Amino acid sequence: MTDSRLAGATVRVVGTGLLGTSVGLGLRARGVDVVLHDASPAQLGLAIDYGAGRAAAPDDRPSLIVVCVPPDVTARTVAAELDAYPDAIVTDVASVKVAPLEELAALGADITRYLGSHPMAGRERGGAVSGRADLFLGRPWVIAGHGAITYGAGAQVDDLALDLGAVPVEMTPEQHDLSVALVSHVPQLVSTLLAARLIDAPERALGLAGQGLRDVTRIAASEPELWVQILGANAAAVADILRELRTDLGSVIDALDGLDRPGSLRALAETLAAGNTGVARIPGKHGQDRRFASVTVMVDDTPGQLARLLTEIGEIGVNLEDLRLEHSPGAQIGLAEIAVVPEARTTLTDELGARGWRIAG
Amino acid sequence: MTDSRLAGATVRVVGTGLLGTSVGLGLRARGVDVVLHDASPAQLGLAIDYGAGRAAAPDDRPSLIVVCVPPDVTARTVAAELDAYPDAIVTDVASVKVAPLEELAALGADITRYLGSHPMAGRERGGAVSGRADLFLGRPWVIAGHGAITYGAGAQVDDLALDLGAVPVEMTPEQHDLSVALVSHVPQLVSTLLAARLIDAPERALGLAGQGLRDVTRIAASEPELWVQILGANAAAVADILRELRTDLGSVIDALDGLDRPGSLRALAETLAAGNTGVARIPGKHGQDRRFASVTVMVDDTPGQLARLLTEIGEIGVNLEDLRLEHSPGAQIGLAEIAVVPEARTTLTDELGARGWRIAG
Repeated sequence: MTDSRLAGATVRVVGTGLLGTSVGLGLRARGVDVVLHDASPAQLGLAIDYGAGRAAAPDDRPSLIVVCVPPDVTARTVAAELDAYPDAIVTDVASVKVAPLEELAALGADITRYLGSHPMAGRERGGAVSGRADLFLGRPWVIAGHGAITYGAGAQVDDLALDLGAVPVEMTPEQHDLSVALVSHVPQLVSTLLAARLIDAPERALGLAGQGLRDVTRIAASEPELWVQILGANAAAVADILRELRTDLGSVIDALDGLDRPGSLRALAETLAAGNTGVARIPGKHGQDRRFASVTVMVDDTPGQLARLLTEIGEIGVNLEDLRLEHSPGAQIGLAEIAVVPEARTTLTDELGARGWRIAG
Repeated sequence: MTDSRLAGATVRVVGTGLLGTSVGLGLRARGVDVVLHDASPAQLGLAIDYGAGRAAAPDDRPSLIVVCVPPDVTARTVAAELDAYPDAIVTDVASVKVAPLEELAALGADITRYLGSHPMAGRERGGAVSGRADLFLGRPWVIAGHGAITYGAGAQVDDLALDLGAVPVEMTPEQHDLSVALVSHVPQLVSTLLAARLIDAPERALGLAGQGLRDVTRIAASEPELWVQILGANAAAVADILRELRTDLGSVIDALDGLDRPGSLRALAETLAAGNTGVARIPGKHGQDRRFASVTVMVDDTPGQLARLLTEIGEIGVNLEDLRLEHSPGAQIGLAEIAVVPEARTTLTDELGARGWRIAG
């Protein structure tokens, strides 16, 4: 492809884990010259083997440097790159943005050439082996502007995000850190704290677990080492939200402890209603606020059945917006919950029913 | 079908909402005589129209009565049924079990004929219109034995669960209430409390939300009226777990507030690791502890694409254990995460790759 905004430029990627390798693969797919560097020769060699870029050469003149190293070494790595390449713009992809900027200022780095960023993309598995060119496709990519860098100097970071198919979102470092505390860091801890309560649970209790518990605790399986760094670098913002959560939790405990007191049931109902309101504010897929209607269809747990269902949905001419497969524990049967635009719900239900599918709702 | 354990019996179902209608539909599918009753003639008529059973007649002699009314009126309804049908065994399906039994004892009801139960099945939508014969298929059905009813007298409740395809699980009422506090009631509140924090969030923060936040908050959309009843009837068990959670939350806040103190990072890491351990204890689908391997495939967001993928997986001869579709916000592309038995992973990856599918991991 030749439609790169960074065409003709050399981009240097420092750190060839999941994110660095994916940046390299994405840029290479657009024909951009990518130079890779990693403190680990083995990790570097692997990323080169995967086609994420070439090894550095003494006469490289990168115009953009993307630092993709763990949060705790981000600032010093950015500072070293700013020193080594005095004509380059440097960005990073760490999931916190205030701390690196402050640390760079303290190190006396030339922050007129630093513009931090944060692609909202990741995977459960890390390393070059998990990297892929389309990791950032359609994802928000926060660009954390600050007063010391000019608009023109930062333009290459926008180009980077756009070349990788991401959606640039401008925020201050402070806005970014408060935002991710709320939508990412606190949810991680809430999931973790709930899952930790299961450690001593009797087997018989866990045997009653349903999809709700599975959903709430899914991200509790995240990697502790990485999360200690992220939480440590955004501690104040995270702790502030956790304190509000603790206050709300205390109110619920008080209501449960004093059910006979007037207002206790109302307090519980209002908390539950507030949860309804809050969850309804999360945007849907495709960046839309639109809500979809759902149709639940019973499918046997055999290879061909679900494919046949989806083929027939295609024949009916309805676009599948989302799909969730739910299995009954212990049973060889499942439920496919299909999200469609509300206008299509009746058509789909009628047509599937006519074709013999059992509609469960 | 004639393989009913309740063949020849008349079963009376009181309350024809989602659960009562589903019980009726399931028993009718096995040829059991089902008599329906509901305080609302309209609701009753609807359930009869759906084929969940017939209207009550003066000479009905039910041997089993299933009370499917909201938790706050369960005990008094059970007591009235025990009085009206002195030869029948009565069960209920309320999601708490200690409170109804205590209330029945206080009412002086004949609990030698009462055996409470709780099918672990439900749906987001209620009412007769959402009922279905297979709602309980493969689900655990807790039977909460107590000292006042003999084993023989309770056998019909086992038969009920088995006729409906559920898996009977015996527990005391206390074990049941502690178990559901942990795997259902506390997760509901945790999800609710997190979602409630989003009410005042800036739009730009919510725009960064990913799948993690969506999963943790999904059940926060549950119905407040029902949950106030459930939580109110299991308040002590729920509050005890919430207090432990509050203590853990306090430790996290302390660690975040005092990152410079020795041991703070370690405390965070240990909490995150405890979450890993806890979530790993939740059994997988089909009641197995077995973990599946996952293969992630890129699919265009068009009607035929996912069907073609699943057709080809069927052709390859690999059984799909679970499927999760993830859409990139703002992009017309999605990722299908397919769970398969670990032995099948390499075959599936190779064969799909050979057929031109882009494997994302």
